[in-house]
Order: sequence, then structure tokens, then C-alpha cells
Amino acid sequence: MRAAIFNGKGDVSLGERPDPRIQEPTDAVVRVVRGCVCGSDLWYYRGVNDHAVGSIGHEYVGVVEEVGADVSDVAVGDLVIAPFTYNDGTCPACANGFESNCTHGGAFGDGASDGGQGERVRSPYADATLVAVPGTDFSDAQLASFTALSDVMCTGYHAAVSAGVTEGDTVAVVGDGAVGLSAVLGARLLGASRIIAMSRHEPRQAVAREFGATDIVAERDQEGIEAVLELTDGVGVDAALECVGTDSAISTCVGVVRAGGMIGAVGVPLYEQFTYQQIFGKNVGIKGGVAPARHYIPELLEKVLDGSIDPGRLFDLTVDLDDVAEAYAAMDERRAIKSLLRVSQP
Amino acid sequence: MRAAIFNGKGDVSLGERPDPRIQEPTDAVVRVVRGCVCGSDLWYYRGVNDHAVGSIGHEYVGVVEEVGADVSDVAVGDLVIAPFTYNDGTCPACANGFESNCTHGGAFGDGASDGGQGERVRSPYADATLVAVPGTDFSDAQLASFTALSDVMCTGYHAAVSAGVTEGDTVAVVGDGAVGLSAVLGARLLGASRIIAMSRHEPRQAVAREFGATDIVAERDQEGIEAVLELTDGVGVDAALECVGTDSAISTCVGVVRAGGMIGAVGVPLYEQFTYQQIFGKNVGIKGGVAPARHYIPELLEKVLDGSIDPGRLFDLTVDLDDVAEAYAAMDERRAIKSLLRVSQP
Repeated sequence: MRAAIFNGKGDVSLGERPDPRIQEPTDAVVRVVRGCVCGSDLWYYRGVNDHAVGSIGHEYVGVVEEVGADVSDVAVGDLVIAPFTYNDGTCPACANGFESNCTHGGAFGDGASDGGQGERVRSPYADATLVAVPGTDFSDAQLASFTALSDVMCTGYHAAVSAGVTEGDTVAVVGDGAVGLSAVLGARLLGASRIIAMSRHEPRQAVAREFGATDIVAERDQEGIEAVLELTDGVGVDAALECVGTDSAISTCVGVVRAGGMIGAVGVPLYEQFTYQQIFGKNVGIKGGVAPARHYIPELLEKVLDGSIDPGRLFDLTVDLDDVAEAYAAMDERRAIKSLLRVSQP
Repeated sequence: MRAAIFNGKGDVSLGERPDPRIQEPTDAVVRVVRGCVCGSDLWYYRGVNDHAVGSIGHEYVGVVEEVGADVSDVAVGDLVIAPFTYNDGTCPACANGFESNCTHGGAFGDGASDGGQGERVRSPYADATLVAVPGTDFSDAQLASFTALSDVMCTGYHAAVSAGVTEGDTVAVVGDGAVGLSAVLGARLLGASRIIAMSRHEPRQAVAREFGATDIVAERDQEGIEAVLELTDGVGVDAALECVGTDSAISTCVGVVRAGGMIGAVGVPLYEQFTYQQIFGKNVGIKGGVAPARHYIPELLEKVLDGSIDPGRLFDLTVDLDDVAEAYAAMDERRAIKSLLRVSQP
């Protein structure tokens, strides 16, 4: 089959991979309909961290082509959304709603398992991992939104959930990448009445406003903190959502959150300066981590299907699988917020 | 008036201080009935941190003797509980239930304001700060429990509240000082069904059991972590309550908490090794800080008055104000968990 192959820093191309087969009775083989490129895919693309040469991509939506003997909840022909991590559905972490910490889980496209940027994927624990989409005849916009549920939308939502955002809250979102924009939408879903998006880029500001941002702060760091405090009468926000992972982003969150508030942090933390002492005195908490996408997909899928959210709006570039190199380059060069890969039709 | 005076490292004695007077129309002057010694009082006693020479102690219960012209919620003759920090009751932090972060607040006995280990205290913002106890003819045991609400019980409760402890949770409490024991009781109040107290000291283990601990783990650090994991089938606890402030205590919490769980941290953090990266991967959060005692006193007072909790049980030494030096020495030498000071009768 054809699949995106990582050849080394800055080099992704379309190549060949063996067709996946059922290996365990709990497996399914999924024909990929849509895949996409994650901000975290850029890390190995840019040489920030290592990645095995080979199959890549952890976000995909597809049609089930074959199932193992023990699979009963998804069937051949189902359109399914895959969370970016697979999980067994039975371990204590899964039972607690943290499927991304599953004892027997793993990530797609991590070098060991098939990636989502290819024609087919073997999905372990298909019943527990995949979410079937009810209905047929989906529009391209719906398919894009389903694909956004594979990771980015759930990750942004996780920031808002982890911060305990609730009805009437004032929220600041630090980071205007696809995760930050998803966090804006996540905060809106949880009932935030005021959402301050910190963004310097006009196209992203526009998406943030569409997603529910009520205010935009273009300044960064200390100036950005002062602008948010000014917007909130000097009080600060109930929740600050950290969607970047840098010291600048977390210190902005620390600066804007009110006494007793929460920081929801989903940017993989590269912090070198941040300490708990910085938030203890203000009674501020921090929670986040690798999003349990599988936990959130069903509720968010309902919202996509009833038209109340449109996270597929994040994709501002759509290319065929053939052009996967361009999908990476456009995001790397910041010409695109997020690239969607058209692999096949449902 | 007579009052405990800090003279320098290891030296607390009974001395003389000017009688407090009403300075602001929102002040009250309170005649102290009971005071006590806090674990944090030992820091300056031991020379760990600086403290002004003079009046000390931030926990007290007393009878209102005089009120300013603007005081209406407490009246002369009322028995009142003072939280260890005073607050104006009107700022946004107060409105959000974080009175310990009040814009105009401060702490009793901090060198600038009267301490609770003396015969009288001027209380700023008396209406917002003091909580009147309904009824009369209180027993010594009740007076001790009221005094525990001034700080220690609220601080332990804050650990459990900050960690979001809820019905049916499994909780581990790290630290068997008075705050840790209060956290055991706090977790029980919030409905935890299993409470693992980490304690090596038999008298403290006994109090922990009285307060609701279902299991005791005497081991520390890695051995303690393994013991807690063994008790929880390898899963870990829903919430770990950090009631010490050391690297050993926080790393124990990190080790015992389950994926997606919470750490409630109220030990003033002296962490040098702890980083957020250590909990991000497990989707664990941390929240805590300086307890908003004023926020918790009314609900906890109800529980004391109806007999369902008895936090005064923490005091295992009671001395008259004359013997305040012994109250400190006994705690410093670990002969007492917590010392109660008998200053006057209601």
C-alpha cells in the first residue's frame, strides 16, 4: 500500500508499506479516508526529537475493511474515528476515562504501529479504540471535522476539561495553533462566557472568533499578561489554557490566572523555568497531559453531527496523500494552520 | 497585656504587649480564649526562616470585647473563631472563596499584626474575618475543636478539596503531622471510601484511624510507594494529599497517584526536584496553596457542633499561656503533635 514515509529530518515522501493484516482477534484493518498532520509531527520533521524511519501520522478516519474474530462493536463497512492512541478499554486507566494512559495502549504511527498517513492501518483493540460514526453520505466538511476529533479537537478540549472550565467562566487561551484554537472551542462547549484568545496572527484570530473567542490579545509575555489583566479588571481569568509547552506560554498562564484558578496544560512541557512554587501562593492548580481522545470522541461527535461545532474548520490546506510532502512543508513554513490529507472516499 | 513573644531562634517567652485598640471602624478587639502553636511557627523557632521579634501565633478563638462603628455581623460577647488570615470579604479573591488571597488581607502574628498567642487581638475586617459560634457553655473539647478550625483543620481539608476528593475515592495522605491528620479527616468528610495514611508513629497512626484512615503504611519513599500500589492492586490512588512540603513527600505523591488523578498540596513547597513534567505524562494534576480557612470554617463548624468531627483531638498537649515556651519546646522535640494554649475562659 502507499503511505507517508519519514526518511529523516525535513524529508517526508510517499512510499510503499506492507498491507496491514489482522494479527490479533481484537484487531481491525481500516482503510483510511482522511488523515492529517499534527503539530507534534513537526517535531521529528524538524529534527527536534527522534523518530523511526518509516510509517507516520497518528490521526485518521476510515472505513473498516476487516475485523478479527473477537471484534463485535465495529463492523466491516463502518466509518470510524480513531483516537491517536489505541487502548484496551478494560484496564483501570481506561475505566477512569484516561484511555491515553492505558496499560496495554500505544500510539499510532510511532514507529512500531501503522501510521494514519497511509492507505490502511491495523488498529489494535478495535472495539475499545475505534468509534463508529452513525449515518452515511458525509460531506467533506463533516469528514474534516471527524478527522479533527482524532486528536487536535480532543486535545484542546482536554485543556478546558482539565482546567475545570464551567458555565460562566472567563478563560484565556495561550497558543493560537490548531490545539489552542480547539481549546477556544472546548471552553465554549463547557460554557465559558468570556474567552480571551492570545493570538498575533489575523487568520487564526478569525478562526478563534468563529470558535467562540470574545476577545483577542495580540501582545505576548508581560505585555500580554497586562492586557489580559486589564480586560479582567485586574482580577485575572478563572482558567488559563496552555497549548504550547514553552516557558513563555506557562509563565503567561501563571500571570493571567486569578487566585484559586486553574491552568489546563496540554502543550508537551518543555518548561525549564516553571516551578510549582510560582502557583502555590495564588492557590492556583495545574492539570493536563496527553488527552484521552477516545474518552471525548463520542460526546464531541454528537456535537459535530448536530452541527453545533465544526472543528474541521481548522484545516486550511487539503491535499491528496500523493502530496503529503507539501502537507508537512506548509505547516513547517506556517503557510497552513493544519493540513488535511485526502486518502480515499468513504 | 500578656502575650507570647518571639525573642529569636529557640526562644519564646511570655512577655508584655500594648493592649490592642480599635483603629479602624471595621476592627474588633477579641479577648483570646484558646490559642495554639502551628507547625509553621516552628520554622522561625528553629531558625529556618526569619520572623520579627515580638507578638506571634496566628490561630485563636476568643470573645469579642469591643467593635468598631462599622461592625455589624459580630457583637460584643460573641465567641468567635478567627481564620489565620484576615480578609476584607469584598475583593474578587474573597468573592471566589479564596479569602487567604484577599487583596487587603494579611496574617495574624506576622510581626505587623497582633498574634493569637496572647490575651487580646485586634482583628481587622471583623465582619468578614471572624465567625461567631452559635450557642453557649462549650466544653473544653469543643473549644479545642473550634481552635483547630482556625488553621490546621482547614488546611488539611483544603488539601482534600483542592484534590477534588469525592464520594468513593481512594486517597493517600503523605505526612502525619497535624495537617496530614486533618487531611485524613477532610478526605473522610468528602466521602473517600479508602484512606491510606502514611505514618511511622504509633500515636499518630491511632489518631489517623480515629479520623477515618482505613489503612496505614509505615514505609517511606520508594518502599512506601510500593506498599500503596500493592494496596491498590497496582493502580494507585485517586488523590494524594501532600501535607509536608519536601521533595520526599511530593515524589511519594507522584508515585502513588493513578493516571488522571490529583495531588492536593498544602505543605509549603520546599521542592527542589519536582517538575510538572513528572506528572504530565500520567495526566495528573496538582492544586493547593495557603488554605482559605475563612471559607471552610462555617461548614466545618457545623460538623463540630453536630458532633460528627472532633478535630480538637489533634491537641495532645494543653498548657496555660504562662507555659507557652513549653508548648513550643514540646512540638519542636516531637513530644507533642500540636499544643493548645489555654488563655482564658469564655
